[in-house]
Amino acid sequence: MGFSLLPKETNLFILFGKQAQFAVDAAMLFAGLTRKGNFNTDTVQKMHDIEHQADEICHEIIEKLNKTYITPFDREDIHRLATELDSVTDMIYTISRRMMVYKINDIDADLIDFSSVIEKSVRALACAINGLSDSKRPQTTLNACIEVNRLENIGDTMRDAILAKLFETIHDPIFLIKWKEIYLFAETVLDICEDVAHVVETIIVKQA
Amino acid sequence: MGFSLLPKETNLFILFGKQAQFAVDAAMLFAGLTRKGNFNTDTVQKMHDIEHQADEICHEIIEKLNKTYITPFDREDIHRLATELDSVTDMIYTISRRMMVYKINDIDADLIDFSSVIEKSVRALACAINGLSDSKRPQTTLNACIEVNRLENIGDTMRDAILAKLFETIHDPIFLIKWKEIYLFAETVLDICEDVAHVVETIIVKQA
Amino acid sequence: MGFSLLPKETNLFILFGKQAQFAVDAAMLFAGLTRKGNFNTDTVQKMHDIEHQADEICHEIIEKLNKTYITPFDREDIHRLATELDSVTDMIYTISRRMMVYKINDIDADLIDFSSVIEKSVRALACAINGLSDSKRPQTTLNACIEVNRLENIGDTMRDAILAKLFETIHDPIFLIKWKEIYLFAETVLDICEDVAHVVETIIVKQA
Repeated sequence: MGFSLLPKETNLFILFGKQAQFAVDAAMLFAGLTRKGNFNTDTVQKMHDIEHQADEICHEIIEKLNKTYITPFDREDIHRLATELDSVTDMIYTISRRMMVYKINDIDADLIDFSSVIEKSVRALACAINGLSDSKRPQTTLNACIEVNRLENIGDTMRDAILAKLFETIHDPIFLIKWKEIYLFAETVLDICEDVAHVVETIIVKQA
Repeated sequence: MGFSLLPKETNLFILFGKQAQFAVDAAMLFAGLTRKGNFNTDTVQKMHDIEHQADEICHEIIEKLNKTYITPFDREDIHRLATELDSVTDMIYTISRRMMVYKINDIDADLIDFSSVIEKSVRALACAINGLSDSKRPQTTLNACIEVNRLENIGDTMRDAILAKLFETIHDPIFLIKWKEIYLFAETVLDICEDVAHVVETIIVKQA
Repeated sequence: MGFSLLPKETNLFILFGKQAQFAVDAAMLFAGLTRKGNFNTDTVQKMHDIEHQADEICHEIIEKLNKTYITPFDREDIHRLATELDSVTDMIYTISRRMMVYKINDIDADLIDFSSVIEKSVRALACAINGLSDSKRPQTTLNACIEVNRLENIGDTMRDAILAKLFETIHDPIFLIKWKEIYLFAETVLDICEDVAHVVETIIVKQA
């Protein structure tokens, strides 16, 4: 089995960059659909295309990992990074599908705000991941990770405030069942972003 | 600590085979109880017995793993395979208990269909796991993994269609609360099967 | 990078001891708030303080782990122990927040009983974790792990009985939505405790 170290490393960083970009694409599309109240077969199909391409990259990374002896950082960190980052895009796709299944196409100010936090978090995450290839500027990467953690806390507080408002003002239980789940999923996106940021921090700390 | 490599390996494959068979037994029992609408203390106790035996095998595998220096494939893959496979049986037991707790004994065509997808997925998974001991025919194993992935996609689509139908036609929120959870759990079984299939694929790729 | 093995090991056990104590503090506070029906901004802030301190210790352990070459037990077991133990405190904090968000301040006998099982489980877990530093008495540690497993089974049975009672006697779906989630979270605490106990058992078995 012949291989050259540098190209493979480069390759891995390019793949992670692509995977992060698909997560950004998904977050942008989700924020756009939320602003327009436009979750239908066509738009969710677009989300599915993004999710599918992200999935292919994830498999490519793991296959490469399984066939490579020397890796730029710990194997288990590469594995976790690829699978958790994949979960970000997956979860955004899952919310979009559920919005369609529940036929929720009201334009909702709270969900617009929340989708904007998700987009910011995924963009910060992409910045952190792209920073991994430049080991000379770890601080930029770490700052992006801190931003992801900050946005997760903001999301927690927003979700609690939104849930409290929903349960105080809405008396239609079916409406509550649907929205409670949408916000559960939305908050889960931020949780997974935070998990990915932790993996990135771990990689940086090990390299220090 | 004396040990012989071959018997231990053989042993491990036998244990995984048994563990997979318990998952098949659980999936078959679940499909049967669904067809008869028959989740009660006695039948759920039968499911518990299967879950308990599967659990014992899982512990046996992990104990063996912790005491063995040389393993037929990567330690973390063995650990993940055993624990995730255990989760398949666990989750089928969990749904069965919940059906009893919610006193759902209507015969429901959608759940019968879904339980049949679960049974097919678990059978394909068992086929993949049994194939691990025969390193000369990796394609058969990989095909079984592809089948598990295919069934997970089918399950996703079915679950969305069923949820959409439930929320359109049912106006009793308590009924919706119960069934939404049952299908969440049912879909989770297929998700975990897919996770197990990914571990099997990883093992095959590493051996290539 | 200079370091002395023993102080670092000692240090790690002290950190795990502190982390376990924060989990006990959280479980005690939760049981107390349940008995008084007193989940409000002030009391949940107290829970947040505990959660935050536990989080800091978790980060300290992982940072130490990432910078240390020799560890008293397997790196991945230390990592899992720290993160899963952190999840125990996190989840108790999450339930407390949700009780406040849902404005549930009824004194409920079932939740008092359940919170007492949680407290017992977390105390047994702390006992198991503290036992890790004393490799001469593994049986005490293992017995504590068995107790955690036993309490998880008790919790499962209690949760099923409580859910069955709720769905039989309560006809307000919004009430059911809230309480179903509280008990889901409560049972999850016991599940995570069991996961932590499994990590402890793994460590003991490997040392045998």
